Amino acid sequence: MSLYESSFPQMARMLGQVPTWLDKAQAHAEQKKYDPEVLLAARLAPDQWPLGRQIQTIISWPLRLSALLVGAEPPAPQTADETIAELRARIGKTLEQVSALKPEQFRGAEDRTIPLFFLPGKGMRAPDFVFQFALPNFYFHATTAYSILRHNGIDVGKADFIGPIALRDL
Amino acid sequence: MSLYESSFPQMARMLGQVPTWLDKAQAHAEQKKYDPEVLLAARLAPDQWPLGRQIQTIISWPLRLSALLVGAEPPAPQTADETIAELRARIGKTLEQVSALKPEQFRGAEDRTIPLFFLPGKGMRAPDFVFQFALPNFYFHATTAYSILRHNGIDVGKADFIGPIALRDL
Repeated sequence: MSLYESSFPQMARMLGQVPTWLDKAQAHAEQKKYDPEVLLAARLAPDQWPLGRQIQTIISWPLRLSALLVGAEPPAPQTADETIAELRARIGKTLEQVSALKPEQFRGAEDRTIPLFFLPGKGMRAPDFVFQFALPNFYFHATTAYSILRHNGIDVGKADFIGPIALRDL
Repeated sequence: MSLYESSFPQMARMLGQVPTWLDKAQAHAEQKKYDPEVLLAARLAPDQWPLGRQIQTIISWPLRLSALLVGAEPPAPQTADETIAELRARIGKTLEQVSALKPEQFRGAEDRTIPLFFLPGKGMRAPDFVFQFALPNFYFHATTAYSILRHNGIDVGKADFIGPIALRDL
């Protein structure tokens, strides 16, 4: 298995679940007659990023990781508030960009050192970066986004988080 | 990278952070003069597993995955309530068992089909099982446990979730 296989297909699969969560959030808002956009400001603790920022972070990870693994400058993160429609559009665009990534673009990435923007002068071996930092952070924000919706009464369940899995007959 | 490298070291690292979260929970309880054990029944939604069960699930994943990857029967999950001290003891024991796993025990595991207990007659390719099911589930329950504490005012932060990372100089 390569770093490509260990990260991008699954990040895309999880990101691809977010529109399902947003569908359920919008259905809940319609049923309860509230503005679904208010959910984007919801949090589980007052000093935590709200839902909108959690989703922005999930969106940013695949292309950020893709840039870092080839030694390119990562795209600037989107941190200005976005509407649900804007988030949906960026999810769609990001999924297209991630599906265009080719495993061979990342040949040799295993041997790179990834610089850490928050620790000048320090970096991590690329496999350590993927497994100890990128994936845990990605799942952290994905689960937190899901949990904020769950805590607000939206009918999301584990299957909405995991999404379809690749089955085979025994 | 092998399935071993893609899963066990990082599952152990994350599980190894849980005692830090429990330390902070117990310090919060002492400061606010409440019984820390009540936190084990806390949830973010009434139809969600409480903190104790979330931690039990994180504990169970590494040895469950280890058994499944070699075609053995996974250990029965512990679902009876446990105290914080009991959870701590099982985390310690599990970390010892995971650190005793050797990469060579899992040679050829990539070619296995892992049966799904909740879908009789169906299974997943072992790499799909690890990346699409085991890791997302593991992180889902780890983040949910963390979020339940965070939501209850415990002073856990992202660094407590991620834990120490393997740095090198640039």
